Amino acid sequence: MVWNSGWRLASASSNSGILGLIGAGSMYPETLREHIQKCKKATTKPFGVNVPMLYPNIQEIMDIIVEEGVKIVFTSAGNPKTWTKWLKEKGITVVHVVSSVKFALKAQEAGVNAVVAEGFEAGGHNGRDETTTLTLIPMVKEQINIPLIAAGGIATGKAMLATMVLGADAVQIGSRFVASEESSAHIAFKQTVVESKEGDTQLTLKELAPVRLIKNKFYNEIQELYKTAPTKEQLKELLGRARAKKGMFEGDLENGELEIGQVAGIIHDIKPVANIVEDIMAEFEDAKKEIIRM
Amino acid sequence: MVWNSGWRLASASSNSGILGLIGAGSMYPETLREHIQKCKKATTKPFGVNVPMLYPNIQEIMDIIVEEGVKIVFTSAGNPKTWTKWLKEKGITVVHVVSSVKFALKAQEAGVNAVVAEGFEAGGHNGRDETTTLTLIPMVKEQINIPLIAAGGIATGKAMLATMVLGADAVQIGSRFVASEESSAHIAFKQTVVESKEGDTQLTLKELAPVRLIKNKFYNEIQELYKTAPTKEQLKELLGRARAKKGMFEGDLENGELEIGQVAGIIHDIKPVANIVEDIMAEFEDAKKEIIRM
Repeated sequence: MVWNSGWRLASASSNSGILGLIGAGSMYPETLREHIQKCKKATTKPFGVNVPMLYPNIQEIMDIIVEEGVKIVFTSAGNPKTWTKWLKEKGITVVHVVSSVKFALKAQEAGVNAVVAEGFEAGGHNGRDETTTLTLIPMVKEQINIPLIAAGGIATGKAMLATMVLGADAVQIGSRFVASEESSAHIAFKQTVVESKEGDTQLTLKELAPVRLIKNKFYNEIQELYKTAPTKEQLKELLGRARAKKGMFEGDLENGELEIGQVAGIIHDIKPVANIVEDIMAEFEDAKKEIIRM
Repeated sequence: MVWNSGWRLASASSNSGILGLIGAGSMYPETLREHIQKCKKATTKPFGVNVPMLYPNIQEIMDIIVEEGVKIVFTSAGNPKTWTKWLKEKGITVVHVVSSVKFALKAQEAGVNAVVAEGFEAGGHNGRDETTTLTLIPMVKEQINIPLIAAGGIATGKAMLATMVLGADAVQIGSRFVASEESSAHIAFKQTVVESKEGDTQLTLKELAPVRLIKNKFYNEIQELYKTAPTKEQLKELLGRARAKKGMFEGDLENGELEIGQVAGIIHDIKPVANIVEDIMAEFEDAKKEIIRM
């Protein structure tokens, strides 16, 4: 959710009765501080910050989170042992994002309060095992005894209920909120998400860090390069810098990295967060009633 | 389900109250006839035959199906227009297996009675779009108005209920029945399925026909070859002939092709088909009751 989840999206989410998250992944430390401060002004409800731990200024980021009194941190892309104890000592609830059973067990061992298990269909950066949400959730559930949050492929109340049937205690939703009015993404990217169909995304750049994105000109260039059995360095050179910003924030649909989940194929409109949440919860309740009649 | 689904598995399935299928993919025409005849003797319930339409002796196969009075055919791997009308004129119910919305629409247009929509997590041959069951089912459901059967990642009553929440009218289950007493697979392969963990399978050989298999010595050889940017011909040469038979039927775990779904990670025992069906249905009913309490 880099370049999508600033204070507007996080506060609107928390104000709608769910837990909003600010995505620190695309922010300089002082930008994050500004977003946290604005979020606190915009909502009295709890919200959290998602921190990819590979971030270069990680200590600075964590210090800001503590200084600003954020009570919930979602960590990803790194070893959960590194920060969990430090954060928990400061009274912060820690949730770690994983893509496999092995990493879920490591996170539990590191003492996190809950794990997000994210399947292959999810947008953006993703695991190497390519395990889908439908199979990952029951396999993780079988092995851990802390709360389990399902992610990847969930944009509707029905999918929320389906993953809870599989054993999830809660869900994390990304792509659906990209196409919200409050997402900080460029309108051209939001529109592309709404127009996406089944089959329009692909997981690629697995040798660097696997990422699911929309198949655009940039993706085709990657595919051309793959035909030459490229080295990691050649792939890195093609990727270059700031591709995600270019695509999602600046709206360069051809040369930018357009990270979105497979579920984009059933996202058909850009709406305010409050309406999205309302629709998901109404569909969730309706789906429960339909099951009773099954 | 090639090399797994002969008359024993199909008749045991039909006798357990579900629809058993004989997989024609691994059979010579006269072998198929023998399996159909044995299946008719072993059950009075309806059963079907799954026919990959790329089969070289396809006319002969279809003639045998008609001659033997089989009333249900599942077609896959080919254009649904080719055989649907011909089969339906003979009073046969036709179900076509698809991996994308586009192919589901083509199947509906061809006049099939139902479609199986199979996700990326499924074992064996698979689609190019890599769409997972969790996202494929709602997207297909949105576009078609004929019955929809979910497949890929389903081995339990909970997964069955989850996919029905997403919009499926029924489910097709493969991998779970590989690890049944009645499957014709080699015991060494069944045991490997039971021992498989999350992350042990991978979709590969995408340039030929994408196939999900267990990562064994043969898979590692494919990966080594990929590093050299191989041509299709080089991949075909490595694949050679009868790899699937070697792995699944003859039990060569190192050099054979071991086709199974990601869901193998939660399959922990080899049981009679009747017990598998009983367990799935009991879990399905329990899961419904749990939802009511949610």
